[in-house]
Amino acid sequence: MVDQRFFANHGPLRLQEIVDLTGATAKGDAALSLVDVAPLDRATASDISFFDNPKYIEQYINSAAGACFVKDKFAAQAPAGMALLICDDPYRAYALVAQRLYPFVPPTDGISPKAEIHSTASIGTDVTIDSGVVIGRNVSIGDGCIISANAVIGDGVSVGRQTRIGACSTISHALIGESCIIHRGVHIGQDGFGFALGRDGHVKVPQLGRVVIDNDVEIGAGTCIDRGTGPDTMIGEGTKIDNLVQIGHNVQIGKRVIIVSQVGISGSTRIGDGVVIGGQAGIAGHLKIGPGARLAARSGVAADIPAGKVYGGTPAVPIKDWHRQVIALNRIIKKDVRGSNDD
Amino acid sequence: MVDQRFFANHGPLRLQEIVDLTGATAKGDAALSLVDVAPLDRATASDISFFDNPKYIEQYINSAAGACFVKDKFAAQAPAGMALLICDDPYRAYALVAQRLYPFVPPTDGISPKAEIHSTASIGTDVTIDSGVVIGRNVSIGDGCIISANAVIGDGVSVGRQTRIGACSTISHALIGESCIIHRGVHIGQDGFGFALGRDGHVKVPQLGRVVIDNDVEIGAGTCIDRGTGPDTMIGEGTKIDNLVQIGHNVQIGKRVIIVSQVGISGSTRIGDGVVIGGQAGIAGHLKIGPGARLAARSGVAADIPAGKVYGGTPAVPIKDWHRQVIALNRIIKKDVRGSNDD
Amino acid sequence: MVDQRFFANHGPLRLQEIVDLTGATAKGDAALSLVDVAPLDRATASDISFFDNPKYIEQYINSAAGACFVKDKFAAQAPAGMALLICDDPYRAYALVAQRLYPFVPPTDGISPKAEIHSTASIGTDVTIDSGVVIGRNVSIGDGCIISANAVIGDGVSVGRQTRIGACSTISHALIGESCIIHRGVHIGQDGFGFALGRDGHVKVPQLGRVVIDNDVEIGAGTCIDRGTGPDTMIGEGTKIDNLVQIGHNVQIGKRVIIVSQVGISGSTRIGDGVVIGGQAGIAGHLKIGPGARLAARSGVAADIPAGKVYGGTPAVPIKDWHRQVIALNRIIKKDVRGSNDD
Repeated sequence: MVDQRFFANHGPLRLQEIVDLTGATAKGDAALSLVDVAPLDRATASDISFFDNPKYIEQYINSAAGACFVKDKFAAQAPAGMALLICDDPYRAYALVAQRLYPFVPPTDGISPKAEIHSTASIGTDVTIDSGVVIGRNVSIGDGCIISANAVIGDGVSVGRQTRIGACSTISHALIGESCIIHRGVHIGQDGFGFALGRDGHVKVPQLGRVVIDNDVEIGAGTCIDRGTGPDTMIGEGTKIDNLVQIGHNVQIGKRVIIVSQVGISGSTRIGDGVVIGGQAGIAGHLKIGPGARLAARSGVAADIPAGKVYGGTPAVPIKDWHRQVIALNRIIKKDVRGSNDD
Repeated sequence: MVDQRFFANHGPLRLQEIVDLTGATAKGDAALSLVDVAPLDRATASDISFFDNPKYIEQYINSAAGACFVKDKFAAQAPAGMALLICDDPYRAYALVAQRLYPFVPPTDGISPKAEIHSTASIGTDVTIDSGVVIGRNVSIGDGCIISANAVIGDGVSVGRQTRIGACSTISHALIGESCIIHRGVHIGQDGFGFALGRDGHVKVPQLGRVVIDNDVEIGAGTCIDRGTGPDTMIGEGTKIDNLVQIGHNVQIGKRVIIVSQVGISGSTRIGDGVVIGGQAGIAGHLKIGPGARLAARSGVAADIPAGKVYGGTPAVPIKDWHRQVIALNRIIKKDVRGSNDD
Repeated sequence: MVDQRFFANHGPLRLQEIVDLTGATAKGDAALSLVDVAPLDRATASDISFFDNPKYIEQYINSAAGACFVKDKFAAQAPAGMALLICDDPYRAYALVAQRLYPFVPPTDGISPKAEIHSTASIGTDVTIDSGVVIGRNVSIGDGCIISANAVIGDGVSVGRQTRIGACSTISHALIGESCIIHRGVHIGQDGFGFALGRDGHVKVPQLGRVVIDNDVEIGAGTCIDRGTGPDTMIGEGTKIDNLVQIGHNVQIGKRVIIVSQVGISGSTRIGDGVVIGGQAGIAGHLKIGPGARLAARSGVAADIPAGKVYGGTPAVPIKDWHRQVIALNRIIKKDVRGSNDD
């Protein structure tokens, strides 16, 4: 199924091993051997799949998967012969199995002679540094880090253990935690967009803070994170940021936040723990987004958002109100059409 | 007209050669010699121009261009002395002439000794590879490809004949067709934003698919295309994608699709052949956009779009309904203002 | 306060020196020595701060800053013991002091032997060129320029004195002025998105113009600026552009324009002097935005905007009308809810 030019399969797994790994309850032969993961519509008898999104129930009912993670309530609809792995969160269980079958295998290329590493930099053990990487003065790179080709790491930056930095990324004025994944073309630590505006010219305001990124953070390709003005720009543990996101100076992002692609967060805004921000949303500066709040894709946020609430629209309102706005607008135009027919 | 530091003119062309190239019907001296292309307001007697957008009719009427592609219906308004090239699609004809006058001339620099090419990579004939390029294990680069400075191509990637890859772009887990143009700073093949979300931490889901790009595809600067989760992310023949676009995992894009800048397409959405997506539009995941559909700039698409239809707004509705919404909103606020004056 | 791994303090400054530098009126001991800048809530007796945004008045009243730039009308509320620096524009004055305390100190590394500079390129004096930089034929780099690691500068480009070009940026077909700051991952001069569309395939239109950037322009990380089609893409003196902005071919941007992150400007649009464009706004092609106009964040502009006016919304309307639209929509849904309760 999977293209072996790119991915090496570490299977098979017996059904019992999957149960041990995920805590699922199995309905099937504990000795069943499963080789690979696959989506419902492509899976064969040796594959493990999952059923999570009810939109795909037809695929589930007709799937040839050998085993499938599924919630208890859908067990009765399973096709005959499919081993079931009953659990509360099929996608999470599937992720754990996929990680076991396709573990991240670090490269063993070591440090390229074509990397340019300043003599004052401190490089840990088992570090991979590819060709074209440039590492500045007094940089600290932790054990097990992987710095991919043509990445540039500026003076004084520190990078924690097991962190990976993608090709053509640039990092300056930053402290980066452990086990982070910085994808390709990410730009961290440039000075933020700080000007004292004036009719005769805009005066640049020195940006004297840093970017501080906690452990287990993932940052998508092309994303830009400006350093703080004096306080720091901060990103909390376990937060995951998608591609092409803009994060302004002094923004503080909590733990386990999810930020989908092309979101923009303006300067000095604070995002609480566990917030989820949909794609292309924009958040104005100096706001507070309460812990656990959720913002629909393309929300335009111009005021604080209370903890735990779901908002949408521009300017963002409680999601039910946004739905009502949409319904009201559609009702109005139908009246208008009727009215104009009556004329 | 054109800055010769950057562009080499391969003219002149006689009017008859232009007719032969484009199929236009000439009204003018077949032996007329034309040297260059230029916009209507800057063209001189030796230049070829085109008139297509009625917004610029004043420029057309007053143009000093020696020859001009134009639709038949505008022929009567041409200034005296301008040779006319009557055709149905003036812009397309102009493009063909401009390509003839300024053909792409491949560099002849060969393979830089400062490129890092793995010994297992297969490099075709007449390939240009610039300084700082890094090419991984088992990569296949077709004949006539041009890989610009500091681009990074990961293990196992294959690139078809005559394809160009821009400076500082990164490509992994991908099969790229022939005659494609990948601009600078493009990131293709990183793992998509796949997490099983949880209160205590988000579990990364291995992304086991590829990016498969057909022939004659163009991808703009800074655009990011994530690889699939197990199915592939796919882009069809002749599709053109502008700058800073985000394409999520498993997205399937048909043939000859046009995607303007800063669009975002979420995971597993399918875009039919010939679709046109305006700038800054966003499309949610798991949707189908029917062949030939058109989405206005900044559309926010949250449901399937039928084939051949034009939609706009957020959430996107048929374009006439969107115009009605806009009109209705403006009417309401005028009533409000009147009402408050009455108070 | 400031992390000395990244920033070197050139203080202290006496209060009188600050007065001389900024023109502020001091209320305090002229011999008072101040060492650093800091925000109101973190400043100590040796720090200079500023109070500008009334949102932070509590921080001002309780600040321990040794000196503070402030408007006259807020002087009476200052805490005891704080030296006051009365001025009309506290943020601008603060910026000047911060620049004095933390001046830009150019590197002294000279030209890296690991840069690839074509023999026909002209390099000024006191130029820094880092490892991995690639500079093409007939490029001209002015005195005092800094070209950071892995940047790529194509044939024929000229760069004025004292301009800095960030790591992993790419520049081609462009003339760049003096004292500009091009951040990292910026892509300037690629051919714009120009196709003659057709059912059977889209024909690429050669893009024969350049990007011409005047002096003192700043361009944020990840921003893309396409070259013109034959006219040039132009950016006026003193204009400041944030991260991840898209500027299409032939766009003409005036002087001292401010463009916030993730804005998109479509082809051939003209932006007057002093315009301010909020984040994530989008402007359609072939429009004129009059001098001094202001566009709210996330505006969608589909028609010309008059000089000096403030617009917002999609499609953009005068900002008061946009606020009325928002109010009207919220009133309608409240009626709807009341109505449905009555049913």
